[in-house]
Amino acid sequence: MTDADKPVDQLCIDTIRVLAMDMVQKAESGHPGLPMGAAPMAYALWTGQLRHYPKDPRWPDRDRFVLSAGHGSALLYCLLHLTGYDLTMDDLKAFRQWDSRTPGHPEYNLTPGVEATTGPLGQGAGNAVGMAIAERALAHRFNRPGHTIVDHHTYALVSDGDLMEGISAEAGSLAGHLKLGKLLFLYDSNNVTLDGPASLSFSTENVAKRYESYGWHVLSVEDGDTDISAIDNAIAAAKEESSRPSLIVVKTTIGYGSPNKQGTSSAHGAPLGAEEVALVKKKWGWDAEKSFHIPERALEHFRLALTRGKELQESWQKRLDAYTKAHPELAKEWRDTLAGKLPQGWDSEIPNWKPGDSLATREASGKVLNAIAERVPWLIGGDADLSESTKTTIANGGDFEGQSGEGRNFHFGVREHAMGAIANGIAYHGGMRPFVATFFVFSDYMRPAVRLAALNTLPAIYVWTHDSIAVGEDGPTHQPIEQLMSLRALPDLKVLRPADANETAEAYRLVMKNTDGPAALILTRQKLPVIDRGQYGPAAGLHRGAYVLWNPSADEPQAIIVATGSEVHQALEAKDLLLNEGISVRVVSMPCWELFAAQNDDYRESVFPSSVSARVSVEAGVTLGWSRWIGDSGISIGIDRFGASAPGKVNLEKFGITAENIAAAVKELLKSPKK
Amino acid sequence: MTDADKPVDQLCIDTIRVLAMDMVQKAESGHPGLPMGAAPMAYALWTGQLRHYPKDPRWPDRDRFVLSAGHGSALLYCLLHLTGYDLTMDDLKAFRQWDSRTPGHPEYNLTPGVEATTGPLGQGAGNAVGMAIAERALAHRFNRPGHTIVDHHTYALVSDGDLMEGISAEAGSLAGHLKLGKLLFLYDSNNVTLDGPASLSFSTENVAKRYESYGWHVLSVEDGDTDISAIDNAIAAAKEESSRPSLIVVKTTIGYGSPNKQGTSSAHGAPLGAEEVALVKKKWGWDAEKSFHIPERALEHFRLALTRGKELQESWQKRLDAYTKAHPELAKEWRDTLAGKLPQGWDSEIPNWKPGDSLATREASGKVLNAIAERVPWLIGGDADLSESTKTTIANGGDFEGQSGEGRNFHFGVREHAMGAIANGIAYHGGMRPFVATFFVFSDYMRPAVRLAALNTLPAIYVWTHDSIAVGEDGPTHQPIEQLMSLRALPDLKVLRPADANETAEAYRLVMKNTDGPAALILTRQKLPVIDRGQYGPAAGLHRGAYVLWNPSADEPQAIIVATGSEVHQALEAKDLLLNEGISVRVVSMPCWELFAAQNDDYRESVFPSSVSARVSVEAGVTLGWSRWIGDSGISIGIDRFGASAPGKVNLEKFGITAENIAAAVKELLKSPKK
Repeated sequence: MTDADKPVDQLCIDTIRVLAMDMVQKAESGHPGLPMGAAPMAYALWTGQLRHYPKDPRWPDRDRFVLSAGHGSALLYCLLHLTGYDLTMDDLKAFRQWDSRTPGHPEYNLTPGVEATTGPLGQGAGNAVGMAIAERALAHRFNRPGHTIVDHHTYALVSDGDLMEGISAEAGSLAGHLKLGKLLFLYDSNNVTLDGPASLSFSTENVAKRYESYGWHVLSVEDGDTDISAIDNAIAAAKEESSRPSLIVVKTTIGYGSPNKQGTSSAHGAPLGAEEVALVKKKWGWDAEKSFHIPERALEHFRLALTRGKELQESWQKRLDAYTKAHPELAKEWRDTLAGKLPQGWDSEIPNWKPGDSLATREASGKVLNAIAERVPWLIGGDADLSESTKTTIANGGDFEGQSGEGRNFHFGVREHAMGAIANGIAYHGGMRPFVATFFVFSDYMRPAVRLAALNTLPAIYVWTHDSIAVGEDGPTHQPIEQLMSLRALPDLKVLRPADANETAEAYRLVMKNTDGPAALILTRQKLPVIDRGQYGPAAGLHRGAYVLWNPSADEPQAIIVATGSEVHQALEAKDLLLNEGISVRVVSMPCWELFAAQNDDYRESVFPSSVSARVSVEAGVTLGWSRWIGDSGISIGIDRFGASAPGKVNLEKFGITAENIAAAVKELLKSPKK
Repeated sequence: MTDADKPVDQLCIDTIRVLAMDMVQKAESGHPGLPMGAAPMAYALWTGQLRHYPKDPRWPDRDRFVLSAGHGSALLYCLLHLTGYDLTMDDLKAFRQWDSRTPGHPEYNLTPGVEATTGPLGQGAGNAVGMAIAERALAHRFNRPGHTIVDHHTYALVSDGDLMEGISAEAGSLAGHLKLGKLLFLYDSNNVTLDGPASLSFSTENVAKRYESYGWHVLSVEDGDTDISAIDNAIAAAKEESSRPSLIVVKTTIGYGSPNKQGTSSAHGAPLGAEEVALVKKKWGWDAEKSFHIPERALEHFRLALTRGKELQESWQKRLDAYTKAHPELAKEWRDTLAGKLPQGWDSEIPNWKPGDSLATREASGKVLNAIAERVPWLIGGDADLSESTKTTIANGGDFEGQSGEGRNFHFGVREHAMGAIANGIAYHGGMRPFVATFFVFSDYMRPAVRLAALNTLPAIYVWTHDSIAVGEDGPTHQPIEQLMSLRALPDLKVLRPADANETAEAYRLVMKNTDGPAALILTRQKLPVIDRGQYGPAAGLHRGAYVLWNPSADEPQAIIVATGSEVHQALEAKDLLLNEGISVRVVSMPCWELFAAQNDDYRESVFPSSVSARVSVEAGVTLGWSRWIGDSGISIGIDRFGASAPGKVNLEKFGITAENIAAAVKELLKSPKK
């Protein structure tokens, strides 16, 4: 069959397959199998049902498409190029090379039209749930009778591997619970994973039945390799069903069209090889000598997306114009919301606590969060079944309802990992700022999602409470030890551990204004006195990461005690003990390493003068890393073992997080400085 | 109804409920709801079907019981005390106090009869799957016709929260795939979580159907509060079914018996309060004034477990004696296996690579692993769908088959988190040493399970390959940056990053001999030259964590370059560049921080003499923490941002991990030492 004889659908699909195969071949690495197998469903969606406009990839009411199986990135890049996004043939040829816009796995900040960074399996499935949530939330807030300005679907293309991951199970269960009817998964069911047939590890599972058990609407397409109309019908039927999310199980052949490799794991994760590439091209009527060839007729057909997209967008723009006339204030809010612009006076209700008060920073956090939420309607979030403990309920927010989009409080259930990915999805979508909460120790459960938030500079807010051995009786499984430092090791995440209620308020002020990446608030379970800011430095010092909380009058201090969070209080007590003995020390509160490291040399020198080498750090966690601030001659007081089950106060005493220990360390340094 | 009138079953169940409630009340914290609701199923199992002998809690052929819902620890402690384990009434009264054997969540190394440390939800479900696997593997290896010495069941009590976690979904799917017929879950289905009714986040899910979709045998008990015989029958029926794991859905009422709190979240995570406790006691005919009262008749009935257990154990002992006569060599192997005793010559086949060779450390790892596996039959393990890449297949091992227990290679599927928990379960069980493998960056997906391995000093072996930006084209989602340091922050985990094939061999030697905790092998994707040990220090230096690889003859070095893993090669090249310029530096290979930190001062001083303050560290990961070894005046060459998609060699160049950069840093230090 020559090009000219082929039905255009077939020609277009073969074009994707050959182009993706060529990309992988040229890069000498990558995954040809998924693009070749999933080309028909991708084609059907992208040239048919998907509402998108390649010339305006950030059009707010576009449908979202997440390639959860990110290793199939070549597929996505082909679709973007073919339908007319700003991604050139040269970009395709630079696949997986330094500085290209076509990296090995899709990256959100790099390539127009890429809605989410994927690759770590299961994450995209979670992101898609978050996007579908954001759509509903925005629809509820802005749509008005006769004026629908938010109305789009979220699609994810998921693989066997995605659906084996626990994170997708959590996200799937929650999506079913929330009845997210505008969420559609296309499941590329090819029964092959990297190691070989999926039956090696996935033999008995009935995925369709599993999604039914979550409350999903499940459809299937028996021949996903050639039956375009079946795919099309299934997508249409899935869109009809608005009361449940839909899973379309599309049976495909991995590496379809490769005479010697299709249907096997050897088509999955490596180039097919020049010979096999030639065979495929021959089979499909391509010139085996030519690479990166796009038949003109196919390109024309793909580019219809430009016309179609333009119409869709213009029609939406008309609706928005009518809306703007009918509801000018809402329209202004709409623009501000999308721009993430904080309303005037957004922080005016944040409390200012007075000395004499005593409250846990989680408690202060709850009050600050509520004060902000009152003024910032696009702040939404929730917790992993611990809202009573994390204090993150928005008092007048109501529970989120997935059909209408009403309500601002999310009950994620005991599903921390999906919670993290859903927060990312909400942030990717735009228009809503997500916060999510659990016990700090369980940040471990969310870690892969937190990493992706950092990698994509998504403004997710993590509220992690119960932040040390002071948690007490719940014991070592519930007591963070290494979490603080291991999160500080993560690039582009701000880790904030405020020392009292007013530092907590400042932390929120900072975080709300910073939308260039995720931030973590690390909060206590136990009560802490409110620091007397008449006597000590102002809480606003938090904005510079570390600041002088107390300095002996006039004199240069003999030593510096630096502490974070609740341990600042033991540091202040130690200062008093030492003062009684005539030793004058400076106390530095250091709520955020990342912010302090970003200050200029002068400021850093002003907080830690080089002339004072006697320095003690205090933090109820591992000491690894503290030498950066206290130097070779300093002493770190911390906890380099797991915690224990006992009342929090007993733990602090037993683990040596006490004013007496701190004072003793200072005296030791002053007596015989470490070399 | 007075004590005397009550059927003994009822009396015993009420005893558990009241005792657990009293424990929580006295501790002034804890979870009374689960023990009160799950008491009937726990009673039925522990006094009926469970094969255990309280006087010998480590009897190898006992049934395993995992309280996956670890917050219900009071239930387990009550069962242990009542059935006659070495856990006294004083221990119960010390619930959740410093140094007690009854911590807030059950801890494996602390309390006889506790089979797994639980609390972080879902982990216990995964551990139980691992235990069931270990049972089958041991049965296959040791049972012989007419001689069955391994034949026991694994039970887990799981809660709504456990089953919401993705890790339990992964583990459940895999258990179904493996057809682990001797695995039974008792699901305490009380529809209440900490935040309130489970319907807040778990409304639509049909858990029974979900487990059926995994290939499980699902039974249900409609009245788990009072219908003991239904529970008993269900457990018996589940034991009959040997070709599938079983889930028994037991409908219960949280906090059953508490007139004002039962069935609500207020019975979940806090003491009931003195008044309510009195009401419960009154209702059940207890003296409201008395605490920690155990009716004599109940205790006698519980203690029948001692007689029954003794009989079970003696009958097994007879079987073992007969086995020892019939199969003396196997019996010796059995003893050695349980003791984890390495066979003579276990490491004699480990290759010794010669300079001139060049291979990735993952490649060397595969060869070493196979050389050891050949001699150590109790080494088993597998990978998360990446065996082709991690090189962890045991060549003659065969694939594990869950019915017979045959085969040593596990295909965990893309289920890293469950893989980690299953490795823990195998280690908890005893008799098998587990290794598990995936890409290093995905260690994040396993982290909560790795933390529990460390907390419980379980000898799990992690083989994490593709350890830096040198991974190349797969890009930042697949390139570890912060993982090395964040795992070093975890107490009691050994992180080993060998520099070449021979260090890899030494790493395995070390790990196999050390069974006092988990160890991680961090390995390259890319080829590395074999270091010429004639010219440089011996690879056995790895056993001390860091060692001098090269020292200038006679002179004290002007500077020290310390590196780990693949970066040792750039360090050696830099040394040559500097030598050409007449600068003599020492090169230190530092494969394991934890081992080096444990050496005595003299050795550490011999590697890093205080007199040499010009020090440069090189590691393709975050620099945080390195100041510990290089001091205030050192320079760290590392990567404090996310990676990029490009060929590995290009990345190393672009990110500055080059000999030239290292040499330049040394020269900078020698020219103008940092203050």
